[in-house]
Formats: sequence, structure tokens, C-alpha cells
Amino acid sequence: MKRAVCLLSGGLDSSTCLAFARREGFECYALSFDYGQRHKFELEAAKKVAASLEAVEHKVISIDLRAFGGSALTADIEVPKSRSGDQMGEGIPVTYVPARNTIFLSLALAWAEVLGAADIFIGVNAIDYSGYPDCRGEYIEAFTKMADLATKSGVEGATKLKIHTPLIELSKGGITKLAQDLGVDFSLTFTCYDPDPQGRPCGLCDACQLRLKGFSEVGIVDPLPYQTR
Amino acid sequence: MKRAVCLLSGGLDSSTCLAFARREGFECYALSFDYGQRHKFELEAAKKVAASLEAVEHKVISIDLRAFGGSALTADIEVPKSRSGDQMGEGIPVTYVPARNTIFLSLALAWAEVLGAADIFIGVNAIDYSGYPDCRGEYIEAFTKMADLATKSGVEGATKLKIHTPLIELSKGGITKLAQDLGVDFSLTFTCYDPDPQGRPCGLCDACQLRLKGFSEVGIVDPLPYQTR
Repeated sequence: MKRAVCLLSGGLDSSTCLAFARREGFECYALSFDYGQRHKFELEAAKKVAASLEAVEHKVISIDLRAFGGSALTADIEVPKSRSGDQMGEGIPVTYVPARNTIFLSLALAWAEVLGAADIFIGVNAIDYSGYPDCRGEYIEAFTKMADLATKSGVEGATKLKIHTPLIELSKGGITKLAQDLGVDFSLTFTCYDPDPQGRPCGLCDACQLRLKGFSEVGIVDPLPYQTR
Repeated sequence: MKRAVCLLSGGLDSSTCLAFARREGFECYALSFDYGQRHKFELEAAKKVAASLEAVEHKVISIDLRAFGGSALTADIEVPKSRSGDQMGEGIPVTYVPARNTIFLSLALAWAEVLGAADIFIGVNAIDYSGYPDCRGEYIEAFTKMADLATKSGVEGATKLKIHTPLIELSKGGITKLAQDLGVDFSLTFTCYDPDPQGRPCGLCDACQLRLKGFSEVGIVDPLPYQTR
């Protein structure tokens, strides 16, 4: 069975991506990060999702991105809230974490090289997204080219890296439908950027708004215990 | 004054690179990593070098690359030793740490973006080096392309990233000469992969052999207290 490293935040997108990799027949090594994110609850979700989707192994790597700050997720900057989602799509939002996907993919690359895996899965999405630059296809393509020059396996020509982005062209509704088809347990996943101390999602941040849009498009109810919906 | 993030291991190359950035008139933010390296002594050196070269700030970020292993520097694999350096140049050595420069540059990129800096300095060298793939010019070029697509500043076209590699075409002797010209205090730097518990360099690993080659080419004596020379 072919090995793959699967980035897993514990949110709906990365959980669906992991389920997709499993269905494609990969032996999955799930990778999460404790990076000082405001919504650390997602790590508990990641653990449960990795177990439920039978990842061979799940590692949580600590990197203190609060040392740099610069984002509403890693510094004392307020997370924007709205009922209409109308703050989205106007430039890059304050929840953007500088170079986050590059850092995460670099660490996935390190693990992949050690495992002898040529496949990495990441649940980025370029349609219904928050405007993060590091979620676009051209970025992923540039990362792949760089990675093949960076590594032993790339240099020795053993295996060319492939970064799989199965969600990149899907709408949020499309992702929710795919998750349903793949049997993802929605109740284990966690999306909110700014949960209350009990871990209940706010229902108003960009991440919640996009998630709820997906459920609404498919016509199913999200089982999470929102504070506001 | 323009800001730059300078990767600093505490070794001779990165210390020289930092001194070079200072001479070019940059306000330098030095960045080191506690990544589970066998030769953690280098972090003490980095601290002293950053202070002596008047970096505005010096951050040490922890990332446990031992969680992945796969290198003599981050796993229980012996560091090769030789008096002649003849084990070098034959493929990629076991001291290669998977994706290390990609991880380090990604974190430098994050800090640069937060600081509003468009310049990163890294002391890679493609001449007298150990055969690491992530020290070559074509790799640095590919990283730069990727980084401009990854970041807010790249997308908004504010500033294009420049990764400076002032040592890339120099021989080890050339680097040592440059260090001398720039007034680097050799006694503060630390290079060895496998020091003894007192922090004395072994004199026999690839890193020591290359360092000693540089001093020998310039005809000066390395002040470090080697176990064997």
C-alpha cells in the first residue's frame, strides 16, 4: 500500500481530504500542528478524526507561530464576525497566518521523505475560501517544483513529489457532499476560529460561515453545538 | 534602514552571512532553531554571534524534527568521521536533515512577512559543501518563486522577496577570508556536528573538516578547542 502524509487540522476540509486519501487506497500518516492557534480545540478533533478514518499514525508537531504573530489566529487581534459573511472576499483577511501552509507543507515534506512517501494530501480550496494566497493551485504547483529540488529523493530522481488537492475546485457544498459520501463523521470535526471556553463554535467567523454555507447548500444540518447560528 | 531576516545556526557560514547583511546596511533579525539537533551547543554560539554582530533581535524557535528523524543529526545514527574528508562528495550524506532548509526558510518567510521585510539571508554554499540538495542556487530560486505566491505581500505586489545567498559561490577559504574581513569573532562560532559533552568540536566530522579546510586555505589558526585536529 502506498504511503501518504495527510495534513489534518481537524476541520471539515482536511478531514474530507483524509477520507479521500483513504478511499484512494493510501496508507495515511496524519499530521497536525499545535502552532499557538486561538482555536486549539481543533487538535482534539484532529485526533478523533485520524482515529475514525484509520490513519496509521497521527503526529502533532509544536511550532510557536505566536513568536511571530501577525494574524488574528496567533496574536491579540479580534476575529471578524458577521451574520452575512459579507466581510469575505475583499482582500486577504486578518485570520491569514503568514506562510502557514508553506510551513505546514515543509514539515509534511520532511516526514514524507523519511517515510519514503511521494504523496502529500492537503485540503486547500480555491473557490469558497477566505482569500488566503497559499490555497491556490499555482502556489501548490510552485511548492511542488521547489520540493523536488529540496530533497534527496527529488535529486536522486527516485520519486517525484505529488501534492494532492482533491478539494481545490469544489464549492463548500461540494465538499460537504463529498464528506457525506465518504462517511466523514461531521460531529467529530471542528472548524471555528473563535470557540467559547466550552469549545462551542461561534457560528459567525469566516470559517463557521463557510462551513454553514456548505451544509445549507446540501440541505443537511450541521450537528455541532453552535453558540449562534 | 531596511529590515532583513537572517538565518543563523551559529556556525561560521551563517555568522559570516549575518556580518555581510550588517555591512550591506540591513537591520538584522536573526533566527535560529532548536530542532532536536545533536549539536545543540550551536545555539549558545548563535546567541553570542547575534549579540556581537548587533542583530536587532534574535529568536530561537523550537520544532521537534526528532519526531521525524531520518538524519544523523536528529536520530540515533552515527555521524561519519574521517581525517581526510574522503567520505564527502559521494552522494547525499547521512547528516542531511530532510527538508531542513525548506522548513527554516518557511519560518523565516513568516517572520519576514510580519516584519514587512522583503529580504532573507541564508549562508548556503554550493562549492565546498556536503552535498545537501537544499543548498543549491536552483533550489533557492524555486523557493523564492513559491514564496511570492504564498504570501500576502507577494499577492498584493507590495514587495518581491529576495533571498540573499552571499556565500553560495565561495570556497571554504573564501568564506573564511570574508569572515576575517568582516570582523567575525571566530571564537564565538560553532560548527561541529558531534561535540563532546564539554562542547569541544570533534575535528573529524564533515562540518569540522570543511571548516578546518577553510582556515588552512587562508593560513590562519582556528581558535576553537578541538578534541582532535
